[in-house]
Amino acid sequence: MLDFSHGAAYVDGQLVPIAEAKISLLDWGFLHSDATYDVAHVWKGKFFRLDDHVERFLSSMGKLRMSIPHSRGDLRSILVDCVRVSGLREAYVEMICTRGLPKPGARDPRTCTNRFFAFAIPFVWIANPQKQTEGLHLIVSRWQRIPPESVDPTVKNYHWLDMIMGLFEAYDRGGETAVVVDTRGNIIEGPGFNIFAVKGRTFTTPARGVLEGITRRTAIELATEYGYEVVQRNLPADEARTADEVFVTSTAGGIMPITKIDERAIGSGIPGPITQKLQEGYWTLHEDPHYTFKIDYE
Amino acid sequence: MLDFSHGAAYVDGQLVPIAEAKISLLDWGFLHSDATYDVAHVWKGKFFRLDDHVERFLSSMGKLRMSIPHSRGDLRSILVDCVRVSGLREAYVEMICTRGLPKPGARDPRTCTNRFFAFAIPFVWIANPQKQTEGLHLIVSRWQRIPPESVDPTVKNYHWLDMIMGLFEAYDRGGETAVVVDTRGNIIEGPGFNIFAVKGRTFTTPARGVLEGITRRTAIELATEYGYEVVQRNLPADEARTADEVFVTSTAGGIMPITKIDERAIGSGIPGPITQKLQEGYWTLHEDPHYTFKIDYE
Repeated sequence: MLDFSHGAAYVDGQLVPIAEAKISLLDWGFLHSDATYDVAHVWKGKFFRLDDHVERFLSSMGKLRMSIPHSRGDLRSILVDCVRVSGLREAYVEMICTRGLPKPGARDPRTCTNRFFAFAIPFVWIANPQKQTEGLHLIVSRWQRIPPESVDPTVKNYHWLDMIMGLFEAYDRGGETAVVVDTRGNIIEGPGFNIFAVKGRTFTTPARGVLEGITRRTAIELATEYGYEVVQRNLPADEARTADEVFVTSTAGGIMPITKIDERAIGSGIPGPITQKLQEGYWTLHEDPHYTFKIDYE
Repeated sequence: MLDFSHGAAYVDGQLVPIAEAKISLLDWGFLHSDATYDVAHVWKGKFFRLDDHVERFLSSMGKLRMSIPHSRGDLRSILVDCVRVSGLREAYVEMICTRGLPKPGARDPRTCTNRFFAFAIPFVWIANPQKQTEGLHLIVSRWQRIPPESVDPTVKNYHWLDMIMGLFEAYDRGGETAVVVDTRGNIIEGPGFNIFAVKGRTFTTPARGVLEGITRRTAIELATEYGYEVVQRNLPADEARTADEVFVTSTAGGIMPITKIDERAIGSGIPGPITQKLQEGYWTLHEDPHYTFKIDYE
Protein backbone atom coordinates (compact mmCIF):
# COMPACT_ATOMS: atom_id res chain seq x y z
CA MET A 1 0.00 0.00 0.00
CA LEU A 2 1.23 3.48 -0.88
CA ASP A 3 1.33 5.96 2.00
CA PHE A 4 -0.61 9.06 0.99
CA SER A 5 -0.99 10.35 4.55
CA HIS A 6 1.53 13.21 4.05
CA GLY A 7 -0.19 14.25 0.85
CA ALA A 8 -0.83 13.05 -2.68
CA ALA A 9 0.11 14.29 -6.11
CA TYR A 10 -1.04 13.81 -9.68
CA VAL A 11 2.02 13.35 -11.91
CA ASP A 12 2.02 11.88 -15.42
CA GLY A 13 -1.55 10.68 -15.06
CA GLN A 14 -0.89 8.81 -11.79
CA LEU A 15 -1.65 9.51 -8.16
CA VAL A 16 1.56 9.20 -6.13
CA PRO A 17 2.54 9.87 -2.51
CA ILE A 18 3.78 13.45 -2.15
CA ALA A 19 7.34 12.29 -1.41
CA GLU A 20 7.46 10.77 -4.91
CA ALA A 21 6.00 13.80 -6.68
CA LYS A 22 8.70 15.03 -9.02
CA ILE A 23 9.23 17.08 -12.15
CA SER A 24 11.97 16.77 -14.76
CA LEU A 25 14.94 19.05 -14.17
CA LEU A 26 14.62 19.98 -17.86
CA ASP A 27 10.98 21.11 -17.70
CA TRP A 28 10.86 24.83 -18.47
CA GLY A 29 8.49 25.11 -15.54
CA PHE A 30 11.62 24.70 -13.45
CA LEU A 31 14.43 25.91 -15.74
CA HIS A 32 12.64 29.12 -16.75
CA SER A 33 9.89 29.34 -14.12
CA ASP A 34 7.64 29.10 -17.18
CA ALA A 35 4.58 27.92 -15.30
CA THR A 36 1.37 29.05 -13.71
CA TYR A 37 -0.52 27.64 -10.77
CA ASP A 38 -3.36 28.10 -8.40
CA VAL A 39 -4.04 27.01 -4.84
CA ALA A 40 -7.41 26.10 -3.37
CA HIS A 41 -8.00 24.81 0.11
CA VAL A 42 -10.09 22.21 1.82
CA TRP A 43 -11.58 22.92 5.24
CA LYS A 44 -13.54 20.35 7.25
CA GLY A 45 -13.69 18.11 4.20
CA LYS A 46 -14.97 20.79 1.83
CA PHE A 47 -13.28 22.70 -0.99
CA PHE A 48 -13.72 26.48 -0.69
CA ARG A 49 -14.41 28.47 -3.88
CA LEU A 50 -12.86 25.72 -5.98
CA ASP A 51 -14.49 26.85 -9.21
CA ASP A 52 -13.09 30.37 -8.80
CA HIS A 53 -9.57 28.95 -8.46
CA VAL A 54 -10.02 26.68 -11.48
CA GLU A 55 -11.34 29.60 -13.55
CA ARG A 56 -8.37 31.79 -12.65
CA PHE A 57 -6.00 28.91 -13.39
CA LEU A 58 -7.49 28.47 -16.89
CA SER A 59 -7.30 32.22 -17.45
CA SER A 60 -3.62 32.26 -16.39
CA MET A 61 -2.85 29.36 -18.73
CA GLY A 62 -4.49 31.20 -21.61
CA LYS A 63 -2.42 34.33 -20.99
CA LEU A 64 0.78 32.23 -21.06
CA ARG A 65 -0.45 30.43 -24.21
CA MET A 66 -0.56 27.08 -22.50
CA SER A 67 -3.10 24.33 -22.98
CA ILE A 68 -3.69 20.89 -21.54
CA PRO A 69 -6.05 18.11 -22.58
CA HIS A 70 -8.17 18.39 -19.43
CA SER A 71 -11.65 19.86 -19.08
CA ARG A 72 -12.82 21.83 -16.04
CA GLY A 73 -14.50 18.63 -14.89
CA ASP A 74 -11.25 16.65 -15.28
CA LEU A 75 -9.33 19.21 -13.22
CA ARG A 76 -11.95 19.14 -10.51
CA SER A 77 -11.85 15.33 -10.42
CA ILE A 78 -8.06 15.22 -10.24
CA LEU A 79 -7.97 17.73 -7.38
CA VAL A 80 -10.66 15.86 -5.50
CA ASP A 81 -8.77 12.59 -6.05
CA CYS A 82 -5.59 14.08 -4.57
CA VAL A 83 -7.48 15.11 -1.44
CA ARG A 84 -9.56 11.94 -1.22
CA VAL A 85 -6.62 9.49 -1.32
CA SER A 86 -4.70 11.61 1.19
CA GLY A 87 -7.67 11.55 3.54
CA LEU A 88 -6.82 15.14 4.54
CA ARG A 89 -9.80 17.08 5.95
CA GLU A 90 -7.79 20.34 5.95
CA ALA A 91 -5.63 20.62 2.87
CA TYR A 92 -3.68 23.01 0.66
CA VAL A 93 -4.36 21.94 -2.91
CA GLU A 94 -2.23 23.18 -5.78
CA MET A 95 -2.77 22.83 -9.54
CA ILE A 96 0.16 23.59 -11.86
CA CYS A 97 0.71 23.93 -15.59
CA THR A 98 4.29 24.01 -16.87
CA ARG A 99 5.59 24.75 -20.34
CA GLY A 100 7.15 21.26 -20.49
CA LEU A 101 10.28 20.28 -22.42
CA PRO A 102 11.19 21.58 -25.88
CA LYS A 103 12.35 19.17 -28.56
CA PRO A 104 15.98 18.12 -27.95
CA GLY A 105 18.29 21.01 -28.83
CA ALA A 106 15.38 23.42 -29.40
CA ARG A 107 14.80 26.64 -27.47
CA ASP A 108 11.35 27.37 -28.86
CA PRO A 109 8.50 27.26 -26.33
CA ARG A 110 6.08 26.49 -29.15
CA THR A 111 7.65 23.03 -29.46
CA CYS A 112 6.82 22.17 -25.84
CA THR A 113 3.98 19.97 -24.68
CA ASN A 114 2.52 21.70 -21.64
CA ARG A 115 2.17 19.57 -18.54
CA PHE A 116 -0.31 19.44 -15.70
CA PHE A 117 0.50 18.56 -12.08
CA ALA A 118 -1.51 18.74 -8.88
CA PHE A 119 -1.00 17.97 -5.25
CA ALA A 120 -2.73 18.07 -1.87
CA ILE A 121 -0.76 18.51 1.35
CA PRO A 122 -1.78 19.37 4.93
CA PHE A 123 -3.16 22.91 5.26
CA VAL A 124 -0.47 25.61 5.38
CA TRP A 125 -0.84 28.81 7.45
CA ILE A 126 0.91 32.13 6.86
CA ALA A 127 -0.12 32.78 10.47
CA ASN A 128 -1.70 29.93 12.43
CA PRO A 129 -4.75 30.49 14.68
CA GLN A 130 -2.54 31.01 17.76
CA LYS A 131 -0.43 33.59 15.92
CA GLN A 132 -3.59 35.24 14.61
CA THR A 133 -4.66 36.12 18.15
CA GLU A 134 -1.53 38.31 18.43
CA GLY A 135 -1.19 39.47 14.84
CA LEU A 136 1.88 39.51 12.64
CA HIS A 137 4.85 41.89 12.61
CA LEU A 138 5.22 43.04 9.02
CA ILE A 139 8.26 44.67 7.42
CA VAL A 140 7.98 46.99 4.43
CA SER A 141 10.83 45.68 2.31
CA ARG A 142 13.16 47.75 0.17
CA TRP A 143 12.74 45.15 -2.57
CA GLN A 144 10.31 46.07 -5.32
CA ARG A 145 7.68 43.68 -6.63
CA ILE A 146 8.36 42.55 -10.20
CA PRO A 147 6.30 45.11 -12.18
CA PRO A 148 3.36 44.29 -14.47
CA GLU A 149 5.40 45.47 -17.46
CA SER A 150 7.71 42.49 -16.84
CA VAL A 151 5.37 39.77 -15.62
CA ASP A 152 1.57 39.94 -15.67
CA PRO A 153 0.63 39.67 -11.98
CA THR A 154 -2.86 38.45 -12.83
CA VAL A 155 -1.12 35.27 -14.01
CA LYS A 156 -0.36 33.52 -10.73
CA ASN A 157 3.33 32.75 -11.06
CA TYR A 158 6.40 31.46 -9.27
CA HIS A 159 8.57 34.57 -9.73
CA TRP A 160 9.19 35.06 -6.04
CA LEU A 161 12.85 36.00 -5.58
CA ASP A 162 11.80 39.58 -4.77
CA MET A 163 9.54 38.28 -2.02
CA ILE A 164 12.04 35.69 -0.75
CA MET A 165 14.72 38.37 -0.40
CA GLY A 166 12.08 40.56 1.25
CA LEU A 167 11.48 37.77 3.78
CA PHE A 168 15.20 37.56 4.62
CA GLU A 169 15.24 41.32 5.03
CA ALA A 170 12.20 41.09 7.33
CA TYR A 171 13.88 38.48 9.52
CA ASP A 172 17.04 40.61 9.69
CA ARG A 173 14.95 43.53 10.87
CA GLY A 174 13.10 41.52 13.52
CA GLY A 175 9.88 41.03 11.57
CA GLU A 176 7.87 37.93 10.75
CA THR A 177 6.86 38.59 7.17
CA ALA A 178 7.33 41.19 4.44
CA VAL A 179 5.61 43.18 1.77
CA VAL A 180 7.36 44.36 -1.37
CA VAL A 181 6.73 47.78 -2.88
CA ASP A 182 6.57 49.63 -6.20
CA THR A 183 9.06 52.23 -7.47
CA ARG A 184 7.37 54.94 -5.38
CA GLY A 185 7.18 53.00 -2.12
CA ASN A 186 3.54 51.96 -2.37
CA ILE A 187 2.89 48.57 -0.82
CA ILE A 188 2.09 45.88 -3.40
CA GLU A 189 1.83 42.44 -1.78
CA GLY A 190 3.69 39.84 0.23
CA PRO A 191 4.72 36.21 -0.26
CA GLY A 192 1.37 34.60 -0.96
CA PHE A 193 -0.88 37.36 0.34
CA ASN A 194 -2.66 40.63 -0.49
CA ILE A 195 -2.92 43.46 2.04
CA PHE A 196 -5.71 45.76 3.26
CA ALA A 197 -5.59 48.89 5.44
CA VAL A 198 -8.72 50.00 7.31
CA LYS A 199 -9.25 53.65 8.29
CA GLY A 200 -12.65 54.67 9.66
CA ARG A 201 -15.16 52.82 7.50
CA THR A 202 -12.91 52.57 4.45
CA PHE A 203 -10.81 49.61 3.32
CA THR A 204 -7.92 50.33 0.98
CA THR A 205 -6.10 47.63 -0.96
CA PRO A 206 -3.50 48.02 -3.73
CA ALA A 207 -5.04 48.11 -7.20
CA ARG A 208 -2.07 47.67 -9.51
CA GLY A 209 0.67 45.09 -9.80
CA VAL A 210 -1.03 42.59 -7.50
CA LEU A 211 -2.34 39.10 -7.81
CA GLU A 212 -6.11 39.38 -7.74
CA GLY A 213 -6.46 36.93 -4.88
CA ILE A 214 -9.60 34.90 -4.30
CA THR A 215 -9.36 35.59 -0.55
CA ARG A 216 -8.84 39.27 -1.43
CA ARG A 217 -12.07 39.06 -3.42
CA THR A 218 -13.84 37.36 -0.50
CA ALA A 219 -12.65 40.12 1.85
CA ILE A 220 -13.91 42.79 -0.55
CA GLU A 221 -17.28 41.05 -0.85
CA LEU A 222 -17.65 40.67 2.92
CA ALA A 223 -16.58 44.24 3.66
CA THR A 224 -19.05 45.55 1.09
CA GLU A 225 -21.80 43.37 2.52
CA TYR A 226 -21.04 44.75 6.01
CA GLY A 227 -21.46 48.30 4.70
CA TYR A 228 -17.82 49.37 4.49
CA GLU A 229 -16.38 51.20 1.51
CA VAL A 230 -13.60 49.34 -0.33
CA VAL A 231 -11.20 51.37 -2.44
CA GLN A 232 -8.65 49.80 -4.79
CA ARG A 233 -5.83 52.29 -5.36
CA ASN A 234 -2.19 52.91 -4.42
CA LEU A 235 -1.40 52.19 -0.77
CA PRO A 236 1.58 54.25 0.45
CA ALA A 237 3.49 52.50 3.24
CA ASP A 238 2.88 55.43 5.61
CA GLU A 239 -0.85 55.14 5.09
CA ALA A 240 -0.69 51.49 6.15
CA ARG A 241 1.47 52.37 9.15
CA THR A 242 -1.13 54.90 10.38
CA ALA A 243 -4.23 52.83 9.60
CA ASP A 244 -6.68 51.74 12.33
CA GLU A 245 -6.27 48.12 11.29
CA VAL A 246 -4.24 46.20 8.73
CA PHE A 247 -4.76 42.63 7.59
CA VAL A 248 -3.52 40.30 4.89
CA THR A 249 -5.49 37.77 2.86
CA SER A 250 -4.41 34.39 1.55
CA THR A 251 -5.74 30.95 0.77
CA ALA A 252 -3.03 29.91 3.25
CA GLY A 253 -4.88 31.13 6.33
CA GLY A 254 -7.72 33.43 5.25
CA ILE A 255 -7.78 36.87 6.84
CA MET A 256 -4.85 37.51 9.18
CA PRO A 257 -4.21 40.62 11.30
CA ILE A 258 -1.04 42.72 11.09
CA THR A 259 -0.42 44.40 14.42
CA LYS A 260 2.98 45.98 13.77
CA ILE A 261 4.58 47.46 10.67
CA ASP A 262 8.33 48.07 10.89
CA GLU A 263 8.74 49.68 14.34
CA ARG A 264 5.20 50.96 14.66
CA ALA A 265 2.20 49.31 16.34
CA ILE A 266 -1.00 49.36 14.29
CA GLY A 267 -3.98 50.81 16.17
CA SER A 268 -3.74 49.54 19.73
CA GLY A 269 -1.25 46.82 18.75
CA ILE A 270 -3.74 43.98 18.92
CA PRO A 271 -6.05 42.57 16.23
CA GLY A 272 -8.86 45.06 15.64
CA PRO A 273 -12.63 44.47 15.71
CA ILE A 274 -13.18 44.95 11.97
CA THR A 275 -10.51 42.39 11.10
CA GLN A 276 -12.04 39.98 13.60
CA LYS A 277 -15.50 40.52 12.15
CA LEU A 278 -14.17 39.75 8.68
CA GLN A 279 -12.37 36.65 9.96
CA GLU A 280 -15.60 35.35 11.44
CA GLY A 281 -17.44 36.06 8.21
CA TYR A 282 -14.72 34.35 6.21
CA TRP A 283 -14.85 31.11 8.19
CA THR A 284 -18.65 31.15 8.30
CA LEU A 285 -18.66 31.15 4.49
CA HIS A 286 -16.93 27.76 4.73
CA GLU A 287 -20.30 26.33 5.77
CA ASP A 288 -22.15 27.96 2.84
CA PRO A 289 -23.00 25.51 0.04
CA HIS A 290 -22.72 28.37 -2.45
CA TYR A 291 -18.96 28.58 -1.77
CA THR A 292 -18.13 25.01 -0.82
CA PHE A 293 -17.98 21.58 -2.34
CA LYS A 294 -18.06 18.51 -0.12
CA ILE A 295 -15.55 15.77 -0.79
CA ASP A 296 -16.68 12.15 -0.70
CA TYR A 297 -13.81 10.40 1.07
CA GLU A 298 -15.30 6.90 0.77
CA MET B 1 23.68 -0.67 -17.93
CA LEU B 2 22.22 2.82 -17.60
CA ASP B 3 21.98 4.82 -20.83
CA PHE B 4 23.71 8.15 -20.34
CA SER B 5 24.01 8.91 -24.06
CA HIS B 6 21.34 11.64 -23.98
CA GLY B 7 22.96 13.26 -20.99
CA ALA B 8 23.66 12.67 -17.33
CA ALA B 9 22.63 14.38 -14.13
CA TYR B 10 23.77 14.55 -10.53
CA VAL B 11 20.75 14.24 -8.25
CA ASP B 12 20.81 13.35 -4.55
CA GLY B 13 24.45 12.34 -4.74
CA GLN B 14 23.92 9.94 -7.65
CA LEU B 15 24.67 10.11 -11.37
CA VAL B 16 21.49 9.28 -13.30
CA PRO B 17 20.50 9.32 -16.99
CA ILE B 18 19.04 12.71 -17.88
CA ALA B 19 15.56 11.22 -18.43
CA GLU B 20 15.52 10.26 -14.75
CA ALA B 21 16.78 13.62 -13.48
CA LYS B 22 13.99 15.03 -11.35
CA ILE B 23 13.32 17.49 -8.56
CA SER B 24 10.59 17.42 -5.94
CA LEU B 25 7.48 19.40 -6.86
CA LEU B 26 7.72 20.91 -3.36
CA ASP B 27 11.30 22.23 -3.73
CA TRP B 28 11.15 26.03 -3.55
CA GLY B 29 13.53 26.01 -6.51
CA PHE B 30 10.44 25.06 -8.48
CA LEU B 31 7.54 26.43 -6.39
CA HIS B 32 9.12 29.87 -5.91
CA SER B 33 11.87 29.86 -8.55
CA ASP B 34 14.10 30.23 -5.51
CA ALA B 35 17.24 28.97 -7.19
CA THR B 36 20.39 30.04 -8.95
CA TYR B 37 22.36 28.30 -11.64
CA ASP B 38 25.20 28.56 -14.07
CA VAL B 39 25.96 26.97 -17.42
CA ALA B 40 29.38 26.07 -18.74
CA HIS B 41 30.08 24.28 -21.98
CA VAL B 42 32.33 21.57 -23.26
CA TRP B 43 33.78 21.84 -26.74
CA LYS B 44 35.91 19.12 -28.33
CA GLY B 45 36.19 17.39 -24.97
CA LYS B 46 37.30 20.49 -23.07
CA PHE B 47 35.47 22.70 -20.58
CA PHE B 48 35.65 26.41 -21.47
CA ARG B 49 36.22 28.91 -18.63
CA LEU B 50 34.83 26.43 -16.11
CA ASP B 51 36.38 28.18 -13.13
CA ASP B 52 34.74 31.48 -14.08
CA HIS B 53 31.34 29.81 -14.17
CA VAL B 54 31.92 28.08 -10.83
CA GLU B 55 33.03 31.38 -9.26
CA ARG B 56 29.93 33.18 -10.50
CA PHE B 57 27.76 30.32 -9.28
CA LEU B 58 29.25 30.53 -5.78
CA SER B 59 28.81 34.31 -5.81
CA SER B 60 25.14 33.93 -6.85
CA MET B 61 24.55 31.40 -4.07
CA GLY B 62 26.05 33.78 -1.53
CA LYS B 63 23.80 36.62 -2.64
CA LEU B 64 20.74 34.38 -2.21
CA ARG B 65 22.05 33.18 1.19
CA MET B 66 22.39 29.61 0.02
CA SER B 67 25.09 27.14 0.91
CA ILE B 68 25.91 23.56 0.04
CA PRO B 69 28.44 21.13 1.50
CA HIS B 70 30.56 21.05 -1.67
CA SER B 71 33.93 22.67 -2.26
CA ARG B 72 34.99 24.21 -5.57
CA GLY B 73 36.88 20.98 -6.22
CA ASP B 74 33.77 18.88 -5.50
CA LEU B 75 31.70 20.94 -7.93
CA ARG B 76 34.33 20.62 -10.61
CA SER B 77 34.48 16.83 -10.08
CA ILE B 78 30.70 16.46 -10.24
CA LEU B 79 30.45 18.49 -13.45
CA VAL B 80 33.28 16.52 -15.03
CA ASP B 81 31.59 13.26 -13.97
CA CYS B 82 28.33 14.29 -15.65
CA VAL B 83 30.17 14.93 -18.91
CA ARG B 84 32.44 11.90 -18.64
CA VAL B 85 29.68 9.33 -18.15
CA SER B 86 27.63 10.89 -20.95
CA GLY B 87 30.61 10.65 -23.29
CA LEU B 88 29.53 13.96 -24.82
CA ARG B 89 32.39 15.88 -26.52
CA GLU B 90 30.18 18.95 -27.03
CA ALA B 91 27.99 19.56 -24.03
CA TYR B 92 25.88 22.13 -22.21
CA VAL B 93 26.62 21.69 -18.51
CA GLU B 94 24.39 23.22 -15.88
CA MET B 95 24.92 23.51 -12.12
CA ILE B 96 21.94 24.44 -9.92
CA CYS B 97 21.36 25.33 -6.30
CA THR B 98 17.78 25.39 -5.02
CA ARG B 99 16.41 26.58 -1.70
CA GLY B 100 15.07 23.07 -1.03
CA LEU B 101 12.01 22.21 1.06
CA PRO B 102 11.00 23.98 4.27
CA LYS B 103 9.99 21.95 7.30
CA PRO B 104 6.42 20.58 6.89
CA GLY B 105 3.94 23.42 7.32
CA ALA B 106 6.68 26.08 7.48
CA ARG B 107 7.04 28.98 5.08
CA ASP B 108 10.44 30.15 6.31
CA PRO B 109 13.32 29.82 3.83
CA ARG B 110 15.78 29.67 6.71
CA THR B 111 14.41 26.20 7.57
CA CYS B 112 15.32 24.83 4.13
CA THR B 113 18.29 22.65 3.31
CA ASN B 114 19.66 23.98 0.04
CA ARG B 115 20.17 21.41 -2.70
CA PHE B 116 22.67 20.99 -5.50
CA PHE B 117 21.92 19.50 -8.91
CA ALA B 118 23.95 19.31 -12.10
CA PHE B 119 23.49 17.94 -15.58
CA ALA B 120 25.24 17.61 -18.92
CA ILE B 121 23.25 17.42 -22.16
CA PRO B 122 24.24 17.76 -25.83
CA PHE B 123 25.39 21.29 -26.73
CA VAL B 124 22.53 23.75 -27.29
CA TRP B 125 22.71 26.61 -29.82
CA ILE B 126 20.75 29.85 -29.76
CA ALA B 127 21.75 29.98 -33.44
CA ASN B 128 23.50 26.96 -34.93
CA PRO B 129 26.53 27.36 -37.26
CA GLN B 130 24.32 27.25 -40.38
CA LYS B 131 22.04 29.93 -38.94
CA GLN B 132 25.07 31.97 -37.93
CA THR B 133 26.11 32.35 -41.58
CA GLU B 134 22.84 34.28 -42.16
CA GLY B 135 22.43 35.94 -38.80
CA LEU B 136 19.34 36.15 -36.63
CA HIS B 137 16.24 38.30 -36.95
CA LEU B 138 15.77 39.98 -33.57
CA ILE B 139 12.62 41.64 -32.26
CA VAL B 140 12.75 44.40 -29.65
CA SER B 141 9.98 43.28 -27.34
CA ARG B 142 7.51 45.52 -25.57
CA TRP B 143 8.08 43.40 -22.44
CA GLN B 144 10.42 44.90 -19.88
CA ARG B 145 13.20 42.92 -18.23
CA ILE B 146 12.58 42.34 -14.52
CA PRO B 147 14.45 45.30 -12.98
CA PRO B 148 17.44 45.06 -10.60
CA GLU B 149 15.29 46.56 -7.83
CA SER B 150 13.18 43.38 -7.96
CA VAL B 151 15.70 40.64 -8.74
CA ASP B 152 19.48 41.07 -8.73
CA PRO B 153 20.45 40.28 -12.34
CA THR B 154 24.01 39.43 -11.33
CA VAL B 155 22.47 36.38 -9.66
CA LYS B 156 21.83 34.08 -12.62
CA ASN B 157 18.20 33.12 -12.14
CA TYR B 158 15.23 31.39 -13.70
CA HIS B 159 12.86 34.38 -13.72
CA TRP B 160 12.23 34.25 -17.44
CA LEU B 161 8.52 34.86 -18.04
CA ASP B 162 9.34 38.33 -19.41
CA MET B 163 11.69 36.75 -21.93
CA ILE B 164 9.37 33.84 -22.75
CA MET B 165 6.52 36.26 -23.51
CA GLY B 166 9.03 38.32 -25.49
CA LEU B 167 9.82 35.22 -27.56
CA PHE B 168 6.14 34.63 -28.32
CA GLU B 169 5.86 38.29 -29.33
CA ALA B 170 8.91 37.89 -31.59
CA TYR B 171 7.43 34.86 -33.33
CA ASP B 172 4.13 36.72 -33.82
CA ARG B 173 6.03 39.55 -35.44
CA GLY B 174 8.04 37.27 -37.76
CA GLY B 175 11.27 37.31 -35.77
CA GLU B 176 13.47 34.51 -34.49
CA THR B 177 14.40 35.79 -31.05
CA ALA B 178 13.76 38.73 -28.75
CA VAL B 179 15.34 41.23 -26.45
CA VAL B 180 13.48 42.78 -23.53
CA VAL B 181 13.89 46.43 -22.59
CA ASP B 182 13.92 48.79 -19.61
CA THR B 183 11.27 51.39 -18.74
CA ARG B 184 12.79 53.84 -21.24
CA GLY B 185 13.13 51.42 -24.15
CA ASN B 186 16.82 50.68 -23.75
CA ILE B 187 17.70 47.13 -24.74
CA ILE B 188 18.64 44.94 -21.78
CA GLU B 189 19.14 41.31 -22.83
CA GLY B 190 17.45 38.31 -24.43
CA PRO B 191 16.65 34.74 -23.35
CA GLY B 192 20.09 33.48 -22.43
CA PHE B 193 22.16 36.15 -24.14
CA ASN B 194 23.73 39.60 -23.86
CA ILE B 195 23.83 42.01 -26.80
CA PHE B 196 26.47 44.27 -28.38
CA ALA B 197 26.16 46.99 -31.03
CA VAL B 198 29.22 47.99 -33.06
CA LYS B 199 29.53 51.46 -34.61
CA GLY B 200 32.85 52.46 -36.13
CA ARG B 201 35.47 51.16 -33.72
CA THR B 202 33.22 51.24 -30.65
CA PHE B 203 31.32 48.38 -29.07
CA THR B 204 28.36 49.27 -26.86
CA THR B 205 26.73 46.80 -24.50
CA PRO B 206 24.10 47.46 -21.83
CA ALA B 207 25.59 48.20 -18.41
CA ARG B 208 22.66 47.93 -16.05
CA GLY B 209 20.07 45.26 -15.35
CA VAL B 210 21.94 42.55 -17.23
CA LEU B 211 23.46 39.23 -16.39
CA GLU B 212 27.20 39.74 -16.51
CA GLY B 213 27.73 36.91 -18.95
CA ILE B 214 31.00 35.01 -19.21
CA THR B 215 30.73 35.08 -23.02
CA ARG B 216 29.97 38.80 -22.73
CA ARG B 217 33.19 39.12 -20.75
CA THR B 218 35.09 37.11 -23.36
CA ALA B 219 33.74 39.37 -26.13
CA ILE B 220 34.82 42.47 -24.18
CA GLU B 221 38.29 41.00 -23.63
CA LEU B 222 38.69 40.06 -27.30
CA ALA B 223 37.40 43.40 -28.59
CA THR B 224 39.77 45.25 -26.27
CA GLU B 225 42.67 43.05 -27.35
CA TYR B 226 41.83 43.82 -31.00
CA GLY B 227 42.03 47.55 -30.27
CA TYR B 228 38.31 48.40 -30.20
CA GLU B 229 36.76 50.56 -27.55
CA VAL B 230 34.10 48.85 -25.42
CA VAL B 231 31.56 51.04 -23.66
CA GLN B 232 29.11 49.70 -21.08
CA ARG B 233 26.14 52.06 -20.89
CA ASN B 234 22.47 52.30 -21.92
CA LEU B 235 21.75 50.96 -25.39
CA PRO B 236 18.64 52.60 -26.91
CA ALA B 237 16.87 50.33 -29.39
CA ASP B 238 17.31 52.87 -32.20
CA GLU B 239 21.04 52.91 -31.65
CA ALA B 240 21.13 49.13 -32.10
CA ARG B 241 18.94 49.39 -35.21
CA THR B 242 21.36 51.85 -36.84
CA ALA B 243 24.59 50.13 -35.76
CA ASP B 244 27.10 48.78 -38.29
CA GLU B 245 26.92 45.36 -36.68
CA VAL B 246 25.01 43.73 -33.85
CA PHE B 247 25.75 40.44 -32.17
CA VAL B 248 24.64 38.48 -29.13
CA THR B 249 26.76 36.45 -26.73
CA SER B 250 25.89 33.25 -24.90
CA THR B 251 27.43 30.06 -23.60
CA ALA B 252 24.80 28.48 -25.87
CA GLY B 253 26.58 29.33 -29.11
CA GLY B 254 29.25 31.93 -28.41
CA ILE B 255 29.12 35.09 -30.53
CA MET B 256 26.16 35.15 -32.92
CA PRO B 257 25.33 37.83 -35.50
CA ILE B 258 22.04 39.72 -35.60
CA THR B 259 21.34 40.83 -39.17
CA LYS B 260 17.85 42.27 -38.77
CA ILE B 261 16.13 44.12 -35.92
CA ASP B 262 12.37 44.45 -36.20
CA GLU B 263 11.87 45.45 -39.87
CA ARG B 264 15.33 46.89 -40.40
CA ALA B 265 18.43 45.18 -41.82
CA ILE B 266 21.60 45.77 -39.82
CA GLY B 267 24.48 47.10 -41.92
CA SER B 268 24.35 45.27 -45.25
CA GLY B 269 22.02 42.59 -43.83
CA ILE B 270 24.71 39.92 -43.56
CA PRO B 271 27.07 39.09 -40.68
CA GLY B 272 29.72 41.83 -40.52
CA PRO B 273 33.52 41.46 -40.50
CA ILE B 274 34.00 42.56 -36.89
CA THR B 275 31.50 40.01 -35.62
CA GLN B 276 33.20 37.33 -37.71
CA LYS B 277 36.61 38.32 -36.38
CA LEU B 278 35.32 38.03 -32.82
CA GLN B 279 33.71 34.67 -33.57
CA GLU B 280 37.05 33.35 -34.86
CA GLY B 281 38.81 34.68 -31.80
CA TYR B 282 36.19 33.13 -29.54
CA TRP B 283 36.54 29.64 -30.98
CA THR B 284 40.35 29.91 -31.11
CA LEU B 285 40.33 30.50 -27.34
CA HIS B 286 38.81 27.02 -27.05
CA GLU B 287 42.28 25.66 -27.84
CA ASP B 288 43.99 27.86 -25.24
CA PRO B 289 44.98 25.92 -22.08
CA HIS B 290 44.51 29.13 -20.06
CA TYR B 291 40.75 28.98 -20.77
CA THR B 292 40.15 25.27 -21.12
CA PHE B 293 40.21 22.12 -19.08
CA LYS B 294 40.50 18.75 -20.81
CA ILE B 295 38.16 15.99 -19.69
CA ASP B 296 39.53 12.49 -19.22
CA TYR B 297 36.78 10.29 -20.68
CA GLU B 298 38.50 6.99 -19.85
